Amino acid sequence: MQVVTDIPSLKNIIEEKKQKGLRIGFVPTMGFLHEGHLSLMRTAKAENDFMVVSIFVNPLQFGAGEDYEEYPRDLERDTKMAGSTGCDLIFSPSVKEMYPPGYATFVQVERLTEGLCGASRPGHFLGVTTVVGKLFNLVCPDRAYFGQKDAQQAFVLQKMVQDLNMNLEVIVLPTVREPDGLAMSSRNKYLSPEQRQEAVVIYKSLIEAEEQIRKGEREAGIIKENIAELISKARHARLDYVEIVDSKELYSVPIIKGRCLIAVAVKFGKTRLIDNVLVEV
Amino acid sequence: MQVVTDIPSLKNIIEEKKQKGLRIGFVPTMGFLHEGHLSLMRTAKAENDFMVVSIFVNPLQFGAGEDYEEYPRDLERDTKMAGSTGCDLIFSPSVKEMYPPGYATFVQVERLTEGLCGASRPGHFLGVTTVVGKLFNLVCPDRAYFGQKDAQQAFVLQKMVQDLNMNLEVIVLPTVREPDGLAMSSRNKYLSPEQRQEAVVIYKSLIEAEEQIRKGEREAGIIKENIAELISKARHARLDYVEIVDSKELYSVPIIKGRCLIAVAVKFGKTRLIDNVLVEV
Repeated sequence: MQVVTDIPSLKNIIEEKKQKGLRIGFVPTMGFLHEGHLSLMRTAKAENDFMVVSIFVNPLQFGAGEDYEEYPRDLERDTKMAGSTGCDLIFSPSVKEMYPPGYATFVQVERLTEGLCGASRPGHFLGVTTVVGKLFNLVCPDRAYFGQKDAQQAFVLQKMVQDLNMNLEVIVLPTVREPDGLAMSSRNKYLSPEQRQEAVVIYKSLIEAEEQIRKGEREAGIIKENIAELISKARHARLDYVEIVDSKELYSVPIIKGRCLIAVAVKFGKTRLIDNVLVEV
Repeated sequence: MQVVTDIPSLKNIIEEKKQKGLRIGFVPTMGFLHEGHLSLMRTAKAENDFMVVSIFVNPLQFGAGEDYEEYPRDLERDTKMAGSTGCDLIFSPSVKEMYPPGYATFVQVERLTEGLCGASRPGHFLGVTTVVGKLFNLVCPDRAYFGQKDAQQAFVLQKMVQDLNMNLEVIVLPTVREPDGLAMSSRNKYLSPEQRQEAVVIYKSLIEAEEQIRKGEREAGIIKENIAELISKARHARLDYVEIVDSKELYSVPIIKGRCLIAVAVKFGKTRLIDNVLVEV
């Protein structure tokens, strides 16, 4: 496994692999890897000839007052973990390598980025689409892999690839969870033991929503109220949003019909956690 | 020479050429070709193995009240002209093929797009970078060719390619002119015989500016005033802007130093013409 930090070295390697006709699988990450990332990598490795992981904490997708500075970083640990999945190449650039002085170009997906996390974190998705657009051009993957946990991100990136006619497939794999059901996230590290114990309420509330729907409930308002109520019982939890949206345009729906996404964001102290389930009726 | 109008056919052809290792040269146009376009095509043909021309009047780069509807279109004539330069493939999509219902993604270059034509035509460059970004992803060129006449466009596209790490070279070729010096443009067709005769004043004023600089003048204000005065003498001409900017960030400069762009936009009735010269002192 190679680790490169500069763009010319990366481009050389990618061009060589492309010329050999190798299929490239790509997992973009912000590092501090967990089992969710590793499951993406294993699939990327199995489905392609050459597997690339990027590790870059992208300042552009953090808002003022968010956790860019504190975001956990450990390249040595990440390198070992990625290596264990058969990763062929790690690209771990500096901020200056990605955004040199005078940087001026941005990729924006409209509409889909307005609700959910886009409403809570203005500018977040502009940062995501810009950096992922750059990484796609740098790595030239045939397939790129993302986790269902960041459902809106996956929808937005699929839209970007489709609209800009990019030559790759965006593949979304199921959320990997801790034994008690909490979705894996690098931010779980921030939780105090008490918060960590309480955080399972997020997934539990989503499971209960699925159960309500299975029993025939179709009123989005009633299901959202129930989720909010369950979460409010956790002493340290503060609901950021609970939304039920259609799975194409991510518009809020009053009645559950077809394929819908139930998405929740909850704050435990300064730590913001998200989770979601896809339902189909 | 093939002519394709749909994206899947285009992608098939491009993939086949790429797999053979052919170098692709690309000339994006809005059609109604003239000698300026043809000179780009001849160079693209000479420098590459496979030469692609796109013909697409891009609604996204026209503002309200601009000439999108009237913009001259003649695919049959264009096809013949492109064919005469050795063009291998014409891509001539419909608006719906490029912007299907629900289209939501845009590429924006900041700063460089604020002055000059960007100030006169808000949103114009957002349309240019978005469509050219899409076309680059569709055609996968090794080199793309643009004319110096649209100097700001060329700078903006070079910036986009650099910032987004796109895998191609943007090549800018000299403006091709009518015998009297008027820069070739599809919009020259709009001019009445009288306007056409007067329009040469644009290039003459730029030549005189070069002459002033050769003689030692360095005050941008004085040079701009002289250009404005010359243009005001043409009865049907209305100056849109005259600017002298540095050739990197396109910031207005008070003193001519290093490489500068002298750029002019002039309206003859509803027809807006642009021209420019690069000077170096």
